Amino acid sequence: MIPLGGLGEFGMNCMALRWQDDIIVIDAGLMFPEEELLGVDIVVPDISYLIENRSKVKAILLTHGHEDHIGGLPWILSELNVPVYGTEFTLAYVEGKLEEHRLLDNADLIEMLPGKRFTLGPFSIMPIRVTHSLVDCVALAIHTPVGVVLHTGDFKVDLSPPDGKPFDLHAFAELGKQGVLCLLQDSTNVDRPGYTPSERAVRPRLDEIFAQTKKKLFFSCFSSSIHRIRVAMELAHKHGRKVAIIGRSLDNSTEIAQDLGYLDLPQGLIINPGQIRDQAPDKVCIMISGTQGEPMSALSRAAVNNHKFAHIDAGDTVLLSSRVIPGNEKGIYRMIDHLERRDAKVIHDDGTAGLIHVSGHGSQEELRLMINLVRPKFFIPVHGDYRHLKRHAELAAGMGIVEKVILLEDGDVLEFDKNTAVKNGKVTTGRVCIDSGGSIDVVEDVVIRDRQHLSEDGIVLPIIAINKRTGRVENTPEIVMRGFAIQDDKLVNDARNIVQKTLDNSSAEEKADYAIIKEKIRNDLKRYIQKQTSRRPLIMPVIMEI
Amino acid sequence: MIPLGGLGEFGMNCMALRWQDDIIVIDAGLMFPEEELLGVDIVVPDISYLIENRSKVKAILLTHGHEDHIGGLPWILSELNVPVYGTEFTLAYVEGKLEEHRLLDNADLIEMLPGKRFTLGPFSIMPIRVTHSLVDCVALAIHTPVGVVLHTGDFKVDLSPPDGKPFDLHAFAELGKQGVLCLLQDSTNVDRPGYTPSERAVRPRLDEIFAQTKKKLFFSCFSSSIHRIRVAMELAHKHGRKVAIIGRSLDNSTEIAQDLGYLDLPQGLIINPGQIRDQAPDKVCIMISGTQGEPMSALSRAAVNNHKFAHIDAGDTVLLSSRVIPGNEKGIYRMIDHLERRDAKVIHDDGTAGLIHVSGHGSQEELRLMINLVRPKFFIPVHGDYRHLKRHAELAAGMGIVEKVILLEDGDVLEFDKNTAVKNGKVTTGRVCIDSGGSIDVVEDVVIRDRQHLSEDGIVLPIIAINKRTGRVENTPEIVMRGFAIQDDKLVNDARNIVQKTLDNSSAEEKADYAIIKEKIRNDLKRYIQKQTSRRPLIMPVIMEI
Repeated sequence: MIPLGGLGEFGMNCMALRWQDDIIVIDAGLMFPEEELLGVDIVVPDISYLIENRSKVKAILLTHGHEDHIGGLPWILSELNVPVYGTEFTLAYVEGKLEEHRLLDNADLIEMLPGKRFTLGPFSIMPIRVTHSLVDCVALAIHTPVGVVLHTGDFKVDLSPPDGKPFDLHAFAELGKQGVLCLLQDSTNVDRPGYTPSERAVRPRLDEIFAQTKKKLFFSCFSSSIHRIRVAMELAHKHGRKVAIIGRSLDNSTEIAQDLGYLDLPQGLIINPGQIRDQAPDKVCIMISGTQGEPMSALSRAAVNNHKFAHIDAGDTVLLSSRVIPGNEKGIYRMIDHLERRDAKVIHDDGTAGLIHVSGHGSQEELRLMINLVRPKFFIPVHGDYRHLKRHAELAAGMGIVEKVILLEDGDVLEFDKNTAVKNGKVTTGRVCIDSGGSIDVVEDVVIRDRQHLSEDGIVLPIIAINKRTGRVENTPEIVMRGFAIQDDKLVNDARNIVQKTLDNSSAEEKADYAIIKEKIRNDLKRYIQKQTSRRPLIMPVIMEI
Repeated sequence: MIPLGGLGEFGMNCMALRWQDDIIVIDAGLMFPEEELLGVDIVVPDISYLIENRSKVKAILLTHGHEDHIGGLPWILSELNVPVYGTEFTLAYVEGKLEEHRLLDNADLIEMLPGKRFTLGPFSIMPIRVTHSLVDCVALAIHTPVGVVLHTGDFKVDLSPPDGKPFDLHAFAELGKQGVLCLLQDSTNVDRPGYTPSERAVRPRLDEIFAQTKKKLFFSCFSSSIHRIRVAMELAHKHGRKVAIIGRSLDNSTEIAQDLGYLDLPQGLIINPGQIRDQAPDKVCIMISGTQGEPMSALSRAAVNNHKFAHIDAGDTVLLSSRVIPGNEKGIYRMIDHLERRDAKVIHDDGTAGLIHVSGHGSQEELRLMINLVRPKFFIPVHGDYRHLKRHAELAAGMGIVEKVILLEDGDVLEFDKNTAVKNGKVTTGRVCIDSGGSIDVVEDVVIRDRQHLSEDGIVLPIIAINKRTGRVENTPEIVMRGFAIQDDKLVNDARNIVQKTLDNSSAEEKADYAIIKEKIRNDLKRYIQKQTSRRPLIMPVIMEI
């Protein structure tokens, strides 16, 4: 078992299972870049290991259709064209994504059905229906020559999902009875005590909001939240509001959900965005994308009155039925400020709005429930930052059920036989940064994480290349200076030496934390340049990951 | 009344009160830059209005010693040297700050005492003791020829502050009896129902943590949280732990607090950081700065094992007795992940840690209590983003006490007589960005907000200058291209036109939101350049505020 992404970070979930000359891959996700990775559109896992073992890779299996599980597919398939297995809904998302990248014609997409077992070389795979914020999600029970490896995928135990497709507790109980070698479980909400409420739990509060809204209602949720979209549309219908859908991803999701029977919409409920102005304000609900304040989203544009169809007027209500993804606070609050200036009533999940959003991931008791049902010999937390994995490992160890809890990180190789699980070495892993503009171009092995600042005092860019895998600095630092001093060879040389010295005096861990290493370079160089030139150019260390 | 900062944003609080030819200024704060302002160290309010009326400015009055109230002083005093009034503790902070900028010798610092009225031209000022996370904080009751203007400063109604200096409810009641023209009140926690707990409320849970910790205890809080520092030190003493203080700001705060009698430490409690290694792990508490994961803070460095004295070993406890300031999530979580990898036990305010932190700002009931006591004729919410001001205005209007609630923003001029308050025009306001490296240099009127990204495909920097006050674009866009195409005049000219067109098609509101305008420029330019050259250079719009 070799995790290639998602163990020690949120996003880019990807895990390889190998038995002799056969490899299967579970999920192929992307990650949205951190602030330091500005300019980069998406981040995907380094799949060198799969490419080195190209002929052995038999398939990619998808647990569900969220971007952190399928978003890396275009990039991975363009490197490694293997069959992709997923449920009907998941594949519908994948199709759209591959079509966009002109990869669909050559793709081999194979539907899997919950409860229907199939074989891939030495592996026999049983998808099991689980519940989550998205629909048609599965866990994967993978029967291997040494026992069952059970991957939960993302899940919560929702006993009343709006689509009426229940969590398959029986299948997990049955597996537990037969014996499970290893359980891999979603760590996202390990910090939350109790149970996560059902997707249906938001309905009463949303119903209230629909009832109280006097003018236009703008409803925003994650575009993949099919349950939420369904509830909103049912409520719109109940309260006599037509529904307009604004935003490409929301449009796409709604269309797929309708095609596959997850949304059964009354005739005439949906109107075109162009028809909004023909409706009385209290007769329309605008489903609009952009809960995270993304600068180009429909809602952000509407917030500054720059959307063709979405006009937010005084007294309108804007409901953000979503959570704040960490890191997006400022963008979201800025958008809310714009909305408030338009005198819209903004309802968001600030702790006072009532239950307008629920998580898609199981809380502590659901994690315990699963461990109790499955009774695995080995337990491995997946899907989380390091601190989540660690907390999850503690939770599992504290139950007295599991024989051994293993804290695995990206790149670790874990070898199983029927009785043991032993770490044995590491493979290459890492993050590949992609500028997605139209097609899928890796940012030519170059990743720049930086902040920028110019002044009349000019700018100095120390550029270093760090090997992401080894942490080694691979070049003599380059120094680019602009608008600050006539190219002065001595100054450049000295600056280069300063940076080199800073690097030499930094630990591997520091060099792996770009925020720290850049701050160190910035400080050291600043001091030197100020002393030499009495000027204060803006110093902008650039790190290229290679 | 002319707010110059802090009404419509968190930070850089600054407000002018003018009567004919006399101006007094309340607070002179800074703001920490947003992500888009990277490279900039601090942001201070544009004080053009004060400079234009230089001879009229009589004094700056400080409500308390937090950076968002005093941090702009070095910059403002270097432009405008006027007397500064503050309480003893506040002035101690100010002294350190001015000394650092070599401005102390020329500064005129005058202590004010809670309850002791003094006169400045037509104004007579009564400082009133309030409670907050910091000590020695005051509200200011300013008697003017048309009535009393009461500015709360930052406050909560803490009935059991650890320093034993109570909130002066009587003074506010007395003012209410005599009649208050206008109340300006802290909006920070207007979203929180109920009352904010006392600073003393964290003690039981912190006591538990001290009792349960077996090895070293690293205690981190905001360096200005004197109450918190006091409680931590009392607990360290109670549990037989020596205290080492690491971090310059924490050191400074502790020293001032000790000098002024806010900390009464038992002989021998404090040890030098160098003595940590001589103590048994269960006999030491390390007070360390860096709750926000700032890359160069002591705690961040300790987290990657790069601090001379702070070594975090397996089994040590790290307690973050603080909140997560929005925008800092990723840095904090990254630091926590590093700490977890060292097998430290990290306790932070994640909702499960118990009461380890309380806010310094009053919640809704405290805001209502103040309005009820003071019964002002006019009410103006201050200190908050626009949405806070608005919510606060609604809260006040809903009480049936205030005659008129006024939503004021930076730069608005509000004219009073005994019976009316009328908005009349605007003055220049805005944000001035400062690179603080050593001395105080304004980033020569140039502010660059940008994100950066380079690749083998090169880089294109469209540079525009926006007049912050008018929102007008002041230059023909400049285009810098590097590593991407041989300087091609036609391409540059066309790119310039593209950017100009994007600007022409954008509203003033969009142009004021740099995130949006940059994204638009980036998208339009990207499309054009890809079409023309089939290449995908990284496009990095640069906006200079002038």
